[in-house]
Amino acid sequence: MIPLADDAITRDDKALILAYDHGLEHGPVDFADVPASADPETVFDVATHDAVTALAVQKGIAEAYYPSYEDDITLLAKLNGTSNMWMGEPDSAVNWSVENAAELGADAIGFTLYGGSNNEVEMAEEFRQAQEAARDHDMGVVMWSYPRGQGLKNDTSASTIAYASRLGLELGADITKIKYPGSADAMKWACDVAGKSKVVMSGGSKASDRDFLETVETAMNAGASGLAVGRNVFQRENPTALLDGLEQVIFEDKTTEEALSVMSSTETDRVDATSD
Amino acid sequence: MIPLADDAITRDDKALILAYDHGLEHGPVDFADVPASADPETVFDVATHDAVTALAVQKGIAEAYYPSYEDDITLLAKLNGTSNMWMGEPDSAVNWSVENAAELGADAIGFTLYGGSNNEVEMAEEFRQAQEAARDHDMGVVMWSYPRGQGLKNDTSASTIAYASRLGLELGADITKIKYPGSADAMKWACDVAGKSKVVMSGGSKASDRDFLETVETAMNAGASGLAVGRNVFQRENPTALLDGLEQVIFEDKTTEEALSVMSSTETDRVDATSD
Amino acid sequence: MIPLADDAITRDDKALILAYDHGLEHGPVDFADVPASADPETVFDVATHDAVTALAVQKGIAEAYYPSYEDDITLLAKLNGTSNMWMGEPDSAVNWSVENAAELGADAIGFTLYGGSNNEVEMAEEFRQAQEAARDHDMGVVMWSYPRGQGLKNDTSASTIAYASRLGLELGADITKIKYPGSADAMKWACDVAGKSKVVMSGGSKASDRDFLETVETAMNAGASGLAVGRNVFQRENPTALLDGLEQVIFEDKTTEEALSVMSSTETDRVDATSD
Amino acid sequence: MIPLADDAITRDDKALILAYDHGLEHGPVDFADVPASADPETVFDVATHDAVTALAVQKGIAEAYYPSYEDDITLLAKLNGTSNMWMGEPDSAVNWSVENAAELGADAIGFTLYGGSNNEVEMAEEFRQAQEAARDHDMGVVMWSYPRGQGLKNDTSASTIAYASRLGLELGADITKIKYPGSADAMKWACDVAGKSKVVMSGGSKASDRDFLETVETAMNAGASGLAVGRNVFQRENPTALLDGLEQVIFEDKTTEEALSVMSSTETDRVDATSD
Amino acid sequence: MIPLADDAITRDDKALILAYDHGLEHGPVDFADVPASADPETVFDVATHDAVTALAVQKGIAEAYYPSYEDDITLLAKLNGTSNMWMGEPDSAVNWSVENAAELGADAIGFTLYGGSNNEVEMAEEFRQAQEAARDHDMGVVMWSYPRGQGLKNDTSASTIAYASRLGLELGADITKIKYPGSADAMKWACDVAGKSKVVMSGGSKASDRDFLETVETAMNAGASGLAVGRNVFQRENPTALLDGLEQVIFEDKTTEEALSVMSSTETDRVDATSD
Repeated sequence: MIPLADDAITRDDKALILAYDHGLEHGPVDFADVPASADPETVFDVATHDAVTALAVQKGIAEAYYPSYEDDITLLAKLNGTSNMWMGEPDSAVNWSVENAAELGADAIGFTLYGGSNNEVEMAEEFRQAQEAARDHDMGVVMWSYPRGQGLKNDTSASTIAYASRLGLELGADITKIKYPGSADAMKWACDVAGKSKVVMSGGSKASDRDFLETVETAMNAGASGLAVGRNVFQRENPTALLDGLEQVIFEDKTTEEALSVMSSTETDRVDATSD
Repeated sequence: MIPLADDAITRDDKALILAYDHGLEHGPVDFADVPASADPETVFDVATHDAVTALAVQKGIAEAYYPSYEDDITLLAKLNGTSNMWMGEPDSAVNWSVENAAELGADAIGFTLYGGSNNEVEMAEEFRQAQEAARDHDMGVVMWSYPRGQGLKNDTSASTIAYASRLGLELGADITKIKYPGSADAMKWACDVAGKSKVVMSGGSKASDRDFLETVETAMNAGASGLAVGRNVFQRENPTALLDGLEQVIFEDKTTEEALSVMSSTETDRVDATSD
Repeated sequence: MIPLADDAITRDDKALILAYDHGLEHGPVDFADVPASADPETVFDVATHDAVTALAVQKGIAEAYYPSYEDDITLLAKLNGTSNMWMGEPDSAVNWSVENAAELGADAIGFTLYGGSNNEVEMAEEFRQAQEAARDHDMGVVMWSYPRGQGLKNDTSASTIAYASRLGLELGADITKIKYPGSADAMKWACDVAGKSKVVMSGGSKASDRDFLETVETAMNAGASGLAVGRNVFQRENPTALLDGLEQVIFEDKTTEEALSVMSSTETDRVDATSD
Repeated sequence: MIPLADDAITRDDKALILAYDHGLEHGPVDFADVPASADPETVFDVATHDAVTALAVQKGIAEAYYPSYEDDITLLAKLNGTSNMWMGEPDSAVNWSVENAAELGADAIGFTLYGGSNNEVEMAEEFRQAQEAARDHDMGVVMWSYPRGQGLKNDTSASTIAYASRLGLELGADITKIKYPGSADAMKWACDVAGKSKVVMSGGSKASDRDFLETVETAMNAGASGLAVGRNVFQRENPTALLDGLEQVIFEDKTTEEALSVMSSTETDRVDATSD
Repeated sequence: MIPLADDAITRDDKALILAYDHGLEHGPVDFADVPASADPETVFDVATHDAVTALAVQKGIAEAYYPSYEDDITLLAKLNGTSNMWMGEPDSAVNWSVENAAELGADAIGFTLYGGSNNEVEMAEEFRQAQEAARDHDMGVVMWSYPRGQGLKNDTSASTIAYASRLGLELGADITKIKYPGSADAMKWACDVAGKSKVVMSGGSKASDRDFLETVETAMNAGASGLAVGRNVFQRENPTALLDGLEQVIFEDKTTEEALSVMSSTETDRVDATSD
């Protein structure tokens, strides 16, 4: 039994998880604006950036692409997920067993829990099985904690998001991914009630570099341990630059201003390099 | 097969169980009045008091905090529980397997049964599995017996509470936690029909020291074997003083008056000590 | 494979089963008229009478009380049962595994089937598992065959009760407990269609000694193999006397008149003995 | 893996299955006209006739009666079945495991599938488990293929009955029992689409000897491999005579006329023998 | 773990799967126009054509017919399927275990997923079990990805079909069978988002040789890896000729014109041979 076994997917107790399960959860329309992002190789390449502590994908993607990247990427096996073609009360199919994920080389599991859904009880019991199997394999456990369903009126209120992060602690996640609740105070509450477990902010909808970095900086100052992000990184024109910036804010304790200046110098460096 | 295997969580056949699963069952709002109570360490510290015979928490809390306290605290693994974001017919997810709880060092299991719920049959069958697994591991079994659901009109009537404690005996609990049914006679009925199994009173809503101790004294005189309590202890300004008082009433057969006088002398002692 | 493995719970192919699961099925109100009957020890003492071939209880009662009586009582493990707080379509939780019952020393299992309930299919499949596990442990199998549910208009008609006893034969019970269908002819039909399996009459609501013995005598003459009885015995002022009488009718082929005369002489003997 | 492992329950690739599960499916009222047929021994005696290639019963009947007949009868374990007290969408409880049936000496399994029922998916999956377990035990597989349920308007139309027999082939039955679809052409269609698997006609409602034999003759000429029959045999005054006649039609390729003449000579022989 | 283990059912990374499960999915009426197609042997003979890389059938068909063809045909075990007599929300029974399919000699499994159905979550979890078991047996995995159900308005729109093929990649299929979405562009989108996994077009409703080949040619040019086809082949007057043509388009990179000319020369050859 190794509680808080998240070493493999953190650096200095911080995490930057690149999540790439949009093809399952939203379908290919999510890639329409940036067609290259439909190709897993594009995203795996992005994930080799030093700032990325883990890449979260579904089983099929891992089977087909991870073997070529296993030296450069830490695999976070996102075990459950469902298409949005289905319109019922929030639920998520368990598409991957922990045993299979471990064989494929995953270092941690990811699992969505829709607290407040009519399927909460069943999902929590599926999480129990996955969490305990992960412990048996010394794998870290990340919960996507997204309150949602008919019992829920406002799923980003401060108390709902604090409840979401507390569920991660109570049920045995090492890291809990929550939505940003809209303010530093609300984020601090959510981080405080998570106790020794870690909280990462989800990337949310697309924003400018500055706005995005500022939100991340606020979250870090409020006690977050990092970020789990998808399109906000891999659908940028220059994902590497943004990852450079995020690295400053998340791992180097830098401000947004400092991060932006690092980003522009890097881009300049590259332009120089290219123009050579 | 070791019937009534509750030695580990009782002292002289009496029990004072500190329950701390509010973060799961009610969410962080439960800690809002006393923010420090959101931190499991605060509550684990309280639970090191000699009067506390066991601390009941969910798996995630146990994984993260129990290892540092395992010499000073007896762990009661609360196996099931559910958020109150979900609004359906009463049910409870099984979040922890007995095997995992035993590995973590738990000496007993706790399990909620909502008698009268449409989910009673399923919950009773989950309890069977947990109870029999606990027997195989020589662990005590505590039932949170809370009649609740559409088949039930009044869940604190004398006959309902007596039924609740009888369910504990019939289904194989060593100790059954029930709500105080409002009178000494009703409590005596509930304790009588539990036969050789033990009954503990749940702490209920916050009350003054005197009122609370008087209710506990009444329950003990009616045949109860102790108390399972949460916020009424760990959200007090001085939990230690109240635990001193409860120790007198539960384990030393003292009256409320005697207990209160012990409490004030202790507080005085401490004040003295502090002012030294 | 030992078909009809009921030797342990019969004497000369006859059975008198004392059933004591009222605390689960009806709750403590069932004991209100005779409060001592809430105490399992009172009933276990009654069950030591030579006429009683088996005592049927739930797991928790067996765990707590059977060890002290194992030399004097044959244990029939009543595996399923449910509180009457729950108001849905008839169903019954499986509260006890056969393996656990065997370890505790039970010689037979008891299982309720609500034929005609929307849960009939599920209950029959649970019965299959229990019945086959019982065969593996050489334990007898008793079915409480109680047609009940939305598909059923009259649950004590001759054809329904005959169906109930036939279900016991078809599905693999050694002994099937049915309600008395109201007439000798209907009872004979029910016993005839049970073939080689045995039929016992359930005790029903409280009646006078003579009325009760006469019904039992009629049932025995119609082909029944005995009786499964609860309150009609253990809530009498003098259970021993009635058991003396039932012994005559069930095992000694005596008439009600003969049984009553034995009963009064015994009582006289006792009175004499007491007055000595 | 032994496909089409039906040798044990056929003779020259033909089958005459005596089915006796009426006590479960319809209840004792089915025996009311011929009370002796309620006694399994009566039917087991009939099943010792050379023409009968297998006797299909439920587990309880097999446990109690088959051991005395195991040298003279081939046992077909009818695994599922349900009382008609229950009024819901067609379903059938699995009352017998293949392992248990094999231990008891069964040579084949029988399984009902209600194609078109809302429970079709679940029943087909239960059939899968039974069929594959039967293969592991080298047991033959007979499907009772009875389209029925809310999705079905006419359950004896030619296309529905042809679908029923095709389901047997597709899902892995060696022999599929279907209702007679009312004409030689429709029967031929049903037999053709069953490919290498065999089709047997179900006995249907009671008919005169001649009418019954003529239907069987028509079915055999249309490609059927025999008959699965119950009351039409064991509730006759002289089941042996009818079995003599069926033997001619099914196994000796004789016409109804020829079979009837054999039947009367046999009866005459017997009368002679008796009158000696 | 062998990702993309589809070698056994492809040739030069292309596939032509002959699917024959119409007897289960649609019933014998599907064979009415070409009665010979009801006989599995007819279709197995067609499947011996060199162009066919695998034959997909249900368990019962495989058990009865595959042993005679195992040297000439590659078996694709279609694990799930359901009759169309049942009218509920799209679902499919798992009729065959991977273990049993492997024992029978299958080289790959086929599995239907109805994305968007209320049963999507359950079907995806059944797929997980089958997919992981197939990996353990080094068997290829083919998904029939057919979005269907109450959550779905238009199941052949470009985005739905692209979603269908992406589901195959995300969930771990080596090959995903989709419906032709109506245009080369839409087909290209569907093939692009499938990444390293392969896409095959389903045969659809009957068309002329030229129309059919043209659609296949378009699909191949759009990135498809082949075809899964049923009636469009085995219900033709001359399936061999069409397979000759498909072989040109799929494996030899030929145009429809070129394929048609090969087809007519082959037919001429045969006519010549016959007329000799």
